[in-house]
Amino acid sequence: MKVSTPNPVNPELVFKAWEKIKGHVHHTPVLTSSLFNQRIGARVFFKAENLQRTGSYKIRGATHAILSLSEKDRKKGVVTHSSGNFAQALSRAAGNLSIPAYIVMPTNAPKIKREAVKLYGGKITDCEPTLEAREAAANKIREQTGATFVHPSNDLQVILGQGTAAVELIHKVLDLNCLVAPVGGGGLLAGTALAAKFLSNNCEVIGAEPFEVDDAYRSLQSGRIETNKTTNTIADGLRTQLGDISFPIIKKHVSRIIRVEEQEIKDAMRWVWERMKIIIEPSSAVAVAAVLREPHYFEGKKVGILISGGNTDVGQPSFL
Amino acid sequence: MKVSTPNPVNPELVFKAWEKIKGHVHHTPVLTSSLFNQRIGARVFFKAENLQRTGSYKIRGATHAILSLSEKDRKKGVVTHSSGNFAQALSRAAGNLSIPAYIVMPTNAPKIKREAVKLYGGKITDCEPTLEAREAAANKIREQTGATFVHPSNDLQVILGQGTAAVELIHKVLDLNCLVAPVGGGGLLAGTALAAKFLSNNCEVIGAEPFEVDDAYRSLQSGRIETNKTTNTIADGLRTQLGDISFPIIKKHVSRIIRVEEQEIKDAMRWVWERMKIIIEPSSAVAVAAVLREPHYFEGKKVGILISGGNTDVGQPSFL
Repeated sequence: MKVSTPNPVNPELVFKAWEKIKGHVHHTPVLTSSLFNQRIGARVFFKAENLQRTGSYKIRGATHAILSLSEKDRKKGVVTHSSGNFAQALSRAAGNLSIPAYIVMPTNAPKIKREAVKLYGGKITDCEPTLEAREAAANKIREQTGATFVHPSNDLQVILGQGTAAVELIHKVLDLNCLVAPVGGGGLLAGTALAAKFLSNNCEVIGAEPFEVDDAYRSLQSGRIETNKTTNTIADGLRTQLGDISFPIIKKHVSRIIRVEEQEIKDAMRWVWERMKIIIEPSSAVAVAAVLREPHYFEGKKVGILISGGNTDVGQPSFL
Repeated sequence: MKVSTPNPVNPELVFKAWEKIKGHVHHTPVLTSSLFNQRIGARVFFKAENLQRTGSYKIRGATHAILSLSEKDRKKGVVTHSSGNFAQALSRAAGNLSIPAYIVMPTNAPKIKREAVKLYGGKITDCEPTLEAREAAANKIREQTGATFVHPSNDLQVILGQGTAAVELIHKVLDLNCLVAPVGGGGLLAGTALAAKFLSNNCEVIGAEPFEVDDAYRSLQSGRIETNKTTNTIADGLRTQLGDISFPIIKKHVSRIIRVEEQEIKDAMRWVWERMKIIIEPSSAVAVAAVLREPHYFEGKKVGILISGGNTDVGQPSFL
């Protein structure tokens, strides 16, 4: 059921995706901090997707994937396996469009995420916490219901939807010199790269990831998709690896990946909470930390940062 | 040195204040939450002054007070006594306009607030933690430097500046049925009331305060300024009482005050952090709690809430 990737992807498609979904998602604000600008010696613009519906950019891709289905397929619903933001996003996007969303969740998924999926009307199927069990459960639902499987990141329609956050940022802030986005499965980074390619002149696109799961960094070096041996990072949204649809786009359009230490992620996260008064999740703090780690690289530039989400425990923040 | 109050205040002045300060402050976003709307059965618009410079609306009033001084007086600087948001706001506003700000702070003021004042370039004078000591220290600075004293809330130019947040909200969201703002010293509520009076038809203005410090509620009932016997609330910004400049405006233009329990403040604060992904301080949560307390009153209406600030300990939030 996966959409095959035209090779190469036409960057204009991300603009078309934005036209399709813009009535269904928040046009999130772009925030600035003069204290942050002083620290870097740059002008930095934060695209606040933590203030997006369901608390992350993922509803953009989920909505676009659903809107790209035929009327007939749409009615049968969508299915995914996810324990994170995408499960909430797909449930909510499907709810908005009045179609069913089937979510396969491992039994050890955090209770708060399970409740959010329920709140948004997603139908949960429990499974053992292994990839095999998740895929088997999702396949069974597909067979029984005719629902379309939507992958959280390695799906072209999802990638195009994720790129619409950068579309809005580039529209709002002219002449950006670079865009920095966190990279896990690569959906946001690939979509952002397509947006920059189509809408701007010479805007460099940079990925940010923890040293602990630096598969994207190593993949760009080796030219093939590398895996992570461990996933020992607080940036829970970035523990996944690139896919065969996201990687070619990233390879073509992303210039470099900046890696950051765990303590840098915590410090950046705390700084943004305290100074900018927004809740960002550790995965978003990775992009902020990347800019803080290399101030000389960004000095004098106009920099956009994709703040990907804010779904984290506010009573027990990861920076403590 | 205090500006005398014309009686009654011309509401148009708040619009003129906005024209004066708009280039010096953030035009903060207006946020919405469909989950919140569902809870109340209303359309609610949050004016996010926690995302304002220095983390609260207070820089509006501070900036307006300074810009209202003559060139000659402006050069001599401004002085205030405050242990809270206004100290930071006046320091930053003065710094932006390249004039000195003298801040009298009690020795027991939180270290984080002291550091913020220093960061913004305010000159701190320590004093004993009594009102007499604070006033004496401020008077001494006035005599020595010629600086103008600016009261955190009971000053007409400050009140007019604080009203500019509502000016922006009313411009953005047409036909609001009511505006809800927290009330402590009354600067924000009075300014908001003037803005509503001048810019809208029949927009009701409602104050929100903790039961623990319900001086504004009692003042509206008795017709004179009442005091609080204790200040046992987590809403640290609302422990002060109304003044002789803010009260007449509130009396004339504010229809009612909704009081809330401490637990309601905590619950509202947590809800906004978790669901809306913004850091709000307890004083702002009071206004949110007021709407949550009386859903039937707001049902079917278009409601604006002034989120006053986000200056609070993010590692140890008051809702825990």
